[in-house]
Amino acid sequence: MYCFNSDYTEGCHPKILDILTATNMEQTVGYGEDEYCKMAAQRIKNACKRDDIYVQFLVGGTQTNLTVISAALRSHQGVLSAESGHIGVHETGAIEATGHKVLALPTTDGKITAKQVDDAVTAHFNDDTHEHMVQPKMVYISNPTEFGTIYSKDEMKALRQVCDKHHLYLFMDGARLGYGLCASRNDLTLDVLCEYCDVFYIGGTKVGALFGEAVVIVNDELKMDFRYIMKQHGGMLAKGRLLGLQFLTLFTDDLYFKISRHAIALADRLRAGLKELNVEFLVDSPTNQVFPILSNAVLERLKEGYIYSYWQKIDDNYSAIRFCTSWATKEEAVDSLLNDLKEYIEHGQ
Amino acid sequence: MYCFNSDYTEGCHPKILDILTATNMEQTVGYGEDEYCKMAAQRIKNACKRDDIYVQFLVGGTQTNLTVISAALRSHQGVLSAESGHIGVHETGAIEATGHKVLALPTTDGKITAKQVDDAVTAHFNDDTHEHMVQPKMVYISNPTEFGTIYSKDEMKALRQVCDKHHLYLFMDGARLGYGLCASRNDLTLDVLCEYCDVFYIGGTKVGALFGEAVVIVNDELKMDFRYIMKQHGGMLAKGRLLGLQFLTLFTDDLYFKISRHAIALADRLRAGLKELNVEFLVDSPTNQVFPILSNAVLERLKEGYIYSYWQKIDDNYSAIRFCTSWATKEEAVDSLLNDLKEYIEHGQ
Amino acid sequence: MYCFNSDYTEGCHPKILDILTATNMEQTVGYGEDEYCKMAAQRIKNACKRDDIYVQFLVGGTQTNLTVISAALRSHQGVLSAESGHIGVHETGAIEATGHKVLALPTTDGKITAKQVDDAVTAHFNDDTHEHMVQPKMVYISNPTEFGTIYSKDEMKALRQVCDKHHLYLFMDGARLGYGLCASRNDLTLDVLCEYCDVFYIGGTKVGALFGEAVVIVNDELKMDFRYIMKQHGGMLAKGRLLGLQFLTLFTDDLYFKISRHAIALADRLRAGLKELNVEFLVDSPTNQVFPILSNAVLERLKEGYIYSYWQKIDDNYSAIRFCTSWATKEEAVDSLLNDLKEYIEHGQ
Amino acid sequence: MYCFNSDYTEGCHPKILDILTATNMEQTVGYGEDEYCKMAAQRIKNACKRDDIYVQFLVGGTQTNLTVISAALRSHQGVLSAESGHIGVHETGAIEATGHKVLALPTTDGKITAKQVDDAVTAHFNDDTHEHMVQPKMVYISNPTEFGTIYSKDEMKALRQVCDKHHLYLFMDGARLGYGLCASRNDLTLDVLCEYCDVFYIGGTKVGALFGEAVVIVNDELKMDFRYIMKQHGGMLAKGRLLGLQFLTLFTDDLYFKISRHAIALADRLRAGLKELNVEFLVDSPTNQVFPILSNAVLERLKEGYIYSYWQKIDDNYSAIRFCTSWATKEEAVDSLLNDLKEYIEHGQ
Repeated sequence: MYCFNSDYTEGCHPKILDILTATNMEQTVGYGEDEYCKMAAQRIKNACKRDDIYVQFLVGGTQTNLTVISAALRSHQGVLSAESGHIGVHETGAIEATGHKVLALPTTDGKITAKQVDDAVTAHFNDDTHEHMVQPKMVYISNPTEFGTIYSKDEMKALRQVCDKHHLYLFMDGARLGYGLCASRNDLTLDVLCEYCDVFYIGGTKVGALFGEAVVIVNDELKMDFRYIMKQHGGMLAKGRLLGLQFLTLFTDDLYFKISRHAIALADRLRAGLKELNVEFLVDSPTNQVFPILSNAVLERLKEGYIYSYWQKIDDNYSAIRFCTSWATKEEAVDSLLNDLKEYIEHGQ
Repeated sequence: MYCFNSDYTEGCHPKILDILTATNMEQTVGYGEDEYCKMAAQRIKNACKRDDIYVQFLVGGTQTNLTVISAALRSHQGVLSAESGHIGVHETGAIEATGHKVLALPTTDGKITAKQVDDAVTAHFNDDTHEHMVQPKMVYISNPTEFGTIYSKDEMKALRQVCDKHHLYLFMDGARLGYGLCASRNDLTLDVLCEYCDVFYIGGTKVGALFGEAVVIVNDELKMDFRYIMKQHGGMLAKGRLLGLQFLTLFTDDLYFKISRHAIALADRLRAGLKELNVEFLVDSPTNQVFPILSNAVLERLKEGYIYSYWQKIDDNYSAIRFCTSWATKEEAVDSLLNDLKEYIEHGQ
Repeated sequence: MYCFNSDYTEGCHPKILDILTATNMEQTVGYGEDEYCKMAAQRIKNACKRDDIYVQFLVGGTQTNLTVISAALRSHQGVLSAESGHIGVHETGAIEATGHKVLALPTTDGKITAKQVDDAVTAHFNDDTHEHMVQPKMVYISNPTEFGTIYSKDEMKALRQVCDKHHLYLFMDGARLGYGLCASRNDLTLDVLCEYCDVFYIGGTKVGALFGEAVVIVNDELKMDFRYIMKQHGGMLAKGRLLGLQFLTLFTDDLYFKISRHAIALADRLRAGLKELNVEFLVDSPTNQVFPILSNAVLERLKEGYIYSYWQKIDDNYSAIRFCTSWATKEEAVDSLLNDLKEYIEHGQ
Repeated sequence: MYCFNSDYTEGCHPKILDILTATNMEQTVGYGEDEYCKMAAQRIKNACKRDDIYVQFLVGGTQTNLTVISAALRSHQGVLSAESGHIGVHETGAIEATGHKVLALPTTDGKITAKQVDDAVTAHFNDDTHEHMVQPKMVYISNPTEFGTIYSKDEMKALRQVCDKHHLYLFMDGARLGYGLCASRNDLTLDVLCEYCDVFYIGGTKVGALFGEAVVIVNDELKMDFRYIMKQHGGMLAKGRLLGLQFLTLFTDDLYFKISRHAIALADRLRAGLKELNVEFLVDSPTNQVFPILSNAVLERLKEGYIYSYWQKIDDNYSAIRFCTSWATKEEAVDSLLNDLKEYIEHGQ
């Protein structure tokens, strides 16, 4: 049985276990103030080519999202997000639990445009009753999105401009950032993200770590007292060095990008194989998430040997599903999947 | 200049000022525990033909909504509402500020159906990841809605049934309840509301009072400690008798319904006059809110003598606006409006 | 039966009912944006001799406290208060419901000192683990306090200095402000409050109004978007003019201070009479709250004709109680109380 | 340099790294629904001798506290805690951030008594204005406390009785539970905790795990939808198996208790050595935290080779400090500390 249903089914890259083992009995201070966290932060600064950014490490994505948003907004302010955004749909109201509304914008591919943001904010302030409505103050985007799509440099620049125009913060959820930055048609880099975002994070949980997200804060306003808010929301790990050691490993010898490229290579191989089988896709994703549309008959057979994520019904006979590759996916798993799919499609329908 | 832009432009019914004046120097206990509040509550119980309901008085609608919802939900639960619902759009995130998500359902006339609720809740619990999503626990409806439409007895019964099926609370925002219950095609009554709702409120602010909303709690689960939560959210008026005196007056000699019928009679007259002028309506509202579609040229002229609410653009030449009548609207104002509109329409376009 | 248990047992000064009646059928815009609110705000600016202050009107004290504090603090920040402060004890956790901790400082008379604030904030930032503790960012004081005591100009200056030193906001709850500013040994004025406070409010509910508190915001940082936060917490009254009309009346012909002086004169008369009877006091209050220590036997007799607030047990035979005078207290009520007390004390023990 | 400042300076027991390594490339479902979590939960049920308890795993203590408390309380309810309780002092207002007040009770040794709880709750409900105050609904205790003290079976029974009397939940923070249950004078066991607590947790972070706390919910009311609230607060670990694997290891072959006993043995040895040197203690702790009172001169010397926690000033010459032992402390470290202390004390003062 091969799991393609998500990109966090395994543990971590073996080098991380090695360093955890090697340092296990060292005594360090807690709460992320140890030397390993400092070294990891410096590596990330180097990778971003910026020394003025502020780096903190949290355990998971929901925690990171709620901490960043809670740190940034006053009580009457909300965050604009694609209607499919993780914060709006899959965090059990974590943002609302900190008092803030997620202001949903329509999307078909998980992305939102600068124009959508501009229109929403302009409409807000043009309304006589704007004091009766949640004030948009932050734009939340995911890169890659929930649909595996990515933002281009031009799109990011346009979002930055509209955020500047309206005094909004731009926050990128990078839970799968490595898989975005290593996609074939990507033109973003970490230093460009520092230029366009006020804050973003480099996801570890889905990209080789046991757990962990590295928050990069560029805007000085958002740096102040950030650690208080981490602690308040239960996001300050006692043995913080576990996060430092993991990101130190991921940012040594380009490991984070090497393993991301591995996942992309296998996703590309999977996409190519599916295209050869004339399979269509729900969305044209260039990253590690692949959204083929398959017949329900094929999907039924597929369950015998593979776990996938059901995504949505297309019609009575067809459904879209999601396959994920990751740093841990084996070439043989992809080949096996393609071979079996070929057989099912040719015979099964 | 006549104001038709809202139903709370004047003070209150003169009888309310009379009783406030007559009782002004009496000394009473505070916080709604005085005799006038008790008498008013009893009158409302009589009007509802129910002695087991629990009545409390709050100052305004947003406060009432946030207090009721906060009292009813656990932290991971949310409230289903039409996407046009007041709690979702015009309360500056008051519900989110208490930690709860407003789960929006699409609507064109301000109403939601039992089927929409059933589908949404069924989809929630059928989803493998339901623990990652806000759990629907309450249905919020307005009657009349933001579009002036009303629920029928059959619709209410269906909503009750789906709420029972899924263990949901049904909460009716009755900020304009009098205008709903007195609409010509209405078949609801206060006692029927007690049968179908877990909690609702009888709006005073828009129906003859200086301010005030009378919350009627039917479900025992929602009665417990409700006053703590009123106090916590700043909704317990120190001189609570001001609320008791007002509702005592409104529920003496059928005043609440008499003045509501007055507003409806004038709205009906306005609707009839507009129809004679071949004006079309955005929505078919039977209550005190009227939504004609008029040319921008006519609207420009109208500003000279009337204040109305701009509602939405229809096309480049036409817009929908809202006129409100109320307990305080004068016949002459409606006649003047119709006469002027006649002239503008016949000559102005 | 005379009520001395609180200062909000009656309705309002008759001039307020007059103006409400006179303006009742006028049509105005809602939410405090009408001309009466503007006029009232201007009168308050005049009384404060400051044109750069920002004035908003809210209905009650708890609502005002939670709105001001919520508007001022980031999520990890708390507010220092005397342990007896209203926000810490008698608002059902209203401040905590907006996410903020009330940091209690010990007191015996309801006041806190600049040194207490300095010590608490210094201790916070000197602690290695300060990120693990709520950060003090605001000082909340009441004037008069819950014990009827008042701050002197020197004490306010010292508080201002310590707030400046530590970048704290200074917030004065003035629910009974008139009774403080008119006390015989007071040396504060509204313009001095503007000099020392970042924000304070002028209480109406307990000083002649039906309800209402006028918030005066001096610090620009706290002005921004304040009305959004009022709305979010249900504190924006639909018929806002009711607040404007009341404060307009109170700030016409010095009414607010005239009626406050009346209450103080009667409280002073009551204190003098009690001293003649050799009654001791729990606390030396110069304002409208009087805290005599009386024998339980006397207190039992007193119940026949007077309502008072039980405050605390002193020993097995004696208790401290509270009498309040107000704008509405009649001379004859005080005389009757003193006469009866004389008899009870001389014969009753 | 030896660290005695806390009990979480090292990584984890080597067996945990072994199992993480052995299972690293296995593919499992996420969010704690994997087989390892189920096995670990069953082991804990066995250790508790109860099959009807509900076990969930969270990453850290603050997160666990805020999740449990948020799941249990309605918005107007608060939690009684010793004034030294972790939730009241060292979690940056995490509980307040979920809307709830921590109601502090005085303590000198970190414990609170059934009588204190009874008095506080009785006083609350006897007060006429109880609706104006936060309603106590939960009792939070730590075992061991912040002062290393522990509750006896009799004390727990009394707390249970008072909680039953007043319908309160009893919640034990067991961040250091192992060190409490293995203290020489302890008479509690896991099954007894299940009898007396509504909910408690078995701390892993400080007792051999990399991180992790196992929540044991006994009361059915608190089980419902608990995982939603974990997710909402960012407390549901994506690779939940990491928690399952750790607790599976700790509850195999009695490991949790073996390593706890190790820490206690070394703490006892340290205490005995200090007593031989005539050192006095701030508090008589029987667990892994030791609070000697030492001269400042000795403490200065001690810094050369040891890290300790400064606790509090005793007088101008003496201070109380804290030493912690843990599962990872080496005998030689304790001996070295005692030898050096002997020298410093004999010569250094």
